[in-house]
Amino acid sequence: MMNTSKRAAELLKTHRESIDRLDAILFNTLGERFSHTRAVGRLKAENDLPASDPLREQEQMRRLETMSQSSGLDPDFAKKILNFIISEVVSQHKSLKHN
Amino acid sequence: MMNTSKRAAELLKTHRESIDRLDAILFNTLGERFSHTRAVGRLKAENDLPASDPLREQEQMRRLETMSQSSGLDPDFAKKILNFIISEVVSQHKSLKHN
Repeated sequence: MMNTSKRAAELLKTHRESIDRLDAILFNTLGERFSHTRAVGRLKAENDLPASDPLREQEQMRRLETMSQSSGLDPDFAKKILNFIISEVVSQHKSLKHN
Repeated sequence: MMNTSKRAAELLKTHRESIDRLDAILFNTLGERFSHTRAVGRLKAENDLPASDPLREQEQMRRLETMSQSSGLDPDFAKKILNFIISEVVSQHKSLKHN
């Protein structure tokens, strides 16, 4: 019979391998997302549109409620992450406007 | 010829549709990631292992350098996001230990 701590170490390794693969998806998806938000930023700067868009952000927050339920995420944590990403996007858009 | 602002509005819509699809990937991936970290948390609690693991976190940060380069992400932003996710994971692990 397998030693309990050896079995735990093996399970831990398997989970960590999954986590590392999921992180590759996460960061590649974030990279793709920023390529679109950079294009949005350029469009906004060229057409003199405001860097942030409260209506769009409200709509994203509503979609997030549904998404966090279906993916089993804590909705408050999901909101914090999205706000963090959006604040990075808005700061990139502002710097585009000032260039 | 199409009006410039109408063209800009259409382009904006197309980018936002991509962003919404990418957000679905992001949040579903995060949900999947937390299902693994919850399993890790239970393993750690059952085997009396510490909630945080500085060596593992260092290794994740090193992998992140490479991932942020290949996905065109600002490495500082990528680090902030990963730290934010890890701090949520560690706080979940601590609450498992105290249950």
